[in-house]
Amino acid sequence: MEAAEFRRRGKEMVDLIADYLENIEQRPVYPDVEPGYLRSLIPEEAPEEPDTYEDVVKDIERVIMPGVTHWHSPYFYAYFPTANSFPAMLADMLSGAIGCIGFSWAASPACTELETVMMDWLGKMLKLPEDFIAGTHGQGGGVIQGTASEATLVALLAARSRAVRMILASDPQRPETGITSKLVAYSSDQAHCSVERAGMIAGVRMKKIPTEQSDKYAVQGETLRRMIQEDKAAGLIPFYFCATLGTTPSCAFDHITELGPICNAEKIWMHIDAAYAGSSFICPEFRPLLNGIEFADSFNFNPHKWLLVNFDCSTMWVRKRSDLIGAFKMDPLYLKHDHQESGLVTDYRHWQIPLGRRFRSLKMWFVFRMYGLKGLQDYIRKHVELAKEFESLVRADQRFEISADVVLGLVCFRLKGSNEVNETLLKRINNGRKIHLVPCQLSGQFVLRFAVCARTTESRHIREAWRLITQLAEEVMQELPH
Amino acid sequence: MEAAEFRRRGKEMVDLIADYLENIEQRPVYPDVEPGYLRSLIPEEAPEEPDTYEDVVKDIERVIMPGVTHWHSPYFYAYFPTANSFPAMLADMLSGAIGCIGFSWAASPACTELETVMMDWLGKMLKLPEDFIAGTHGQGGGVIQGTASEATLVALLAARSRAVRMILASDPQRPETGITSKLVAYSSDQAHCSVERAGMIAGVRMKKIPTEQSDKYAVQGETLRRMIQEDKAAGLIPFYFCATLGTTPSCAFDHITELGPICNAEKIWMHIDAAYAGSSFICPEFRPLLNGIEFADSFNFNPHKWLLVNFDCSTMWVRKRSDLIGAFKMDPLYLKHDHQESGLVTDYRHWQIPLGRRFRSLKMWFVFRMYGLKGLQDYIRKHVELAKEFESLVRADQRFEISADVVLGLVCFRLKGSNEVNETLLKRINNGRKIHLVPCQLSGQFVLRFAVCARTTESRHIREAWRLITQLAEEVMQELPH
Repeated sequence: MEAAEFRRRGKEMVDLIADYLENIEQRPVYPDVEPGYLRSLIPEEAPEEPDTYEDVVKDIERVIMPGVTHWHSPYFYAYFPTANSFPAMLADMLSGAIGCIGFSWAASPACTELETVMMDWLGKMLKLPEDFIAGTHGQGGGVIQGTASEATLVALLAARSRAVRMILASDPQRPETGITSKLVAYSSDQAHCSVERAGMIAGVRMKKIPTEQSDKYAVQGETLRRMIQEDKAAGLIPFYFCATLGTTPSCAFDHITELGPICNAEKIWMHIDAAYAGSSFICPEFRPLLNGIEFADSFNFNPHKWLLVNFDCSTMWVRKRSDLIGAFKMDPLYLKHDHQESGLVTDYRHWQIPLGRRFRSLKMWFVFRMYGLKGLQDYIRKHVELAKEFESLVRADQRFEISADVVLGLVCFRLKGSNEVNETLLKRINNGRKIHLVPCQLSGQFVLRFAVCARTTESRHIREAWRLITQLAEEVMQELPH
Repeated sequence: MEAAEFRRRGKEMVDLIADYLENIEQRPVYPDVEPGYLRSLIPEEAPEEPDTYEDVVKDIERVIMPGVTHWHSPYFYAYFPTANSFPAMLADMLSGAIGCIGFSWAASPACTELETVMMDWLGKMLKLPEDFIAGTHGQGGGVIQGTASEATLVALLAARSRAVRMILASDPQRPETGITSKLVAYSSDQAHCSVERAGMIAGVRMKKIPTEQSDKYAVQGETLRRMIQEDKAAGLIPFYFCATLGTTPSCAFDHITELGPICNAEKIWMHIDAAYAGSSFICPEFRPLLNGIEFADSFNFNPHKWLLVNFDCSTMWVRKRSDLIGAFKMDPLYLKHDHQESGLVTDYRHWQIPLGRRFRSLKMWFVFRMYGLKGLQDYIRKHVELAKEFESLVRADQRFEISADVVLGLVCFRLKGSNEVNETLLKRINNGRKIHLVPCQLSGQFVLRFAVCARTTESRHIREAWRLITQLAEEVMQELPH
């Protein structure tokens, strides 16, 4: 296919996409297929000779769509949102065409520089301390990672390398493996599973800090302090704490104003994972949730969740660039370039796990400009309002209970009664394929999570979802003994 | 922006992209900007109110293009190629619109299942042993990673976890940190810097195996065997060897038919990194380069380099799925789903570092169908021919020498003479901004790498590049004393 045909096919694809998104409500949000459904629908091998483009396009409806979970349907309330907006899609088309790999400044200066400035724009929207903004006298700056999991891991590796350096500085004879085997990291027992996984990857101990329902599932300073003292007494070296703002199960917020000073005093790297909640901090009324950021070494959230920038775009800031770069730096000749030593230049490959990187800041640029800060704030506020509306509906029904504070766009709720009845209810909801939810566990209870996700969700969808849930709840309660 | 406006803007963007790629030759391939050029061209903060779309589009030429290194210009000969094709771009547009996150089967069955089948299609094109193909009775299968760096790391982590399990099975009392501190991994001194980095991340020793010019920079079985014996005698535990097929400096090929049996006998995980060269193995005449794959535990290459699938798409196969999954598995309730335990289902989040993942197999599907196997083979062959043409031009000129065998699309060459004269020549070439090359170091010599990269490179571009190089060489030689 050459450019002339692409002009035609590209425009057809634009219409196909617009049609898909305009009519997404009419599709079952959750697919009705069995594992292995797809293999028999297509040949066992790639064709020798080209297929026609018409056949490929026909297969989108025949092969792909029946197996798609429609994350952008206004009936999708599962997990957390993933962003999708037209300006982001336009930018991504351009990014695909430019198709540069931005591992170093020289590999495509625009790719690197727009990223640095977009990270500053976003950092300013969040009112981050100046230390985190690249265009200041601070030593920090931002980088786009693929996912929050990678940000957590990158922060952990930087922390590990800093801890080893600090110990070797005072005790140069100590063998490095002897140090890492004593390191201990911490996170909430509510933290995302990727935090524990980061510990496995880096080969360090990761301890879960217990939280309580009575504390709203937030890590308490006293608990962290006690664990640190016990571990130090046992000869371990506390070096990393991953705080969560907006946990996956219930959107709980660790008390970072309390936890931060403890970490600072103990020279423990504090990373803040606000993967979902972070987008809301652009609104002044939610910004207090980020108070305590001044104690953090690194901070991350996902505009690709809730800030209208399509996946992947996980934004991470560090207080000291050199901490991150120090953990990774490798400079073979084929990646060296003239400006490398100038100090003005960022080679983002030293900031991340992969070497290659797409031109992702274009998405941020298009979205920030096409919505404006106000448009983005409106978007966040609307989702929070919709969640509050759902919360009111639940609270008004005596058969149900709210399982955790509703702070942003997530409502955790359940039928008063057994886990079994709630499991059955959820199964019934998802099998209906009209709306889609996933569960969580809170203090041993099976809880339903209702997350406002799609860009096009309106009040009428929320009310429709609630009607459906109560109707199925009635059925379930009639069938199951209480 | 709503769907109606997207229909218009999307079509304009399609034309903008077609215009860009049709006229890319007219742009200087390497940008003439100084570090920091971009910041002053745009505001310091995001706008409060939306900008107009017209202003955003105007800024593409004003702000972005002056700072772009045009990787798809036929005058781009740096690094290795990154792929760019119209079918891949069309698929990526669709992927952006569907915008599902495929971390589990349930999160979007089509996303997972198309990936498994596309990995089988590609595995069959490469004539991989059946063990690596998911749709067989084997225990293996394929997964799309973001980059080869991630594949190398994932394989290393799987190997680490397998090694620890094996040792604990025979000596359950041994402390785990005591094991990892004794592990030792190997790779060629020609291997990509990301291999060494993977060792740093995983916290294990990584030793470089020396190679010689006389052996064409390939790792020799004898050398590996000796290092293993020495390390075992010193109490270390060899557990991982990363072989390279097509090294970054000179496109050298390790002798895996010789190295594989050594690894198998020593229960060392052999990973094969063929990031660039792998695409060529779809041609019968290049497939012998992959002989020895039958000894490997995992294998990876980048269709996003040379197989017309836009970045990112790094394809990785493992012989035993459970080895990979065992290194990562985490199953919180919010990610569990009904089909999880059925055995038919793949949850790709257990195969990789990030949790989230895009619908990347659509790109493979579109490209394989729109080119057909023959079209893809033709594409590879054409690039190899162009490289051979460049090689002949170099060989016909007594002032130059070829520095390494030309096997695929990379030509390593230099002026006979000092490193200084070659460094000056390269600087002159890149400052001219007509063509773009990067260097490498081979046996202490500064060498110029000429990699055929763009989809639209033709013989006339090769000849033009050579005219320019010889012209600049003449200037340099006149100025510098020999």
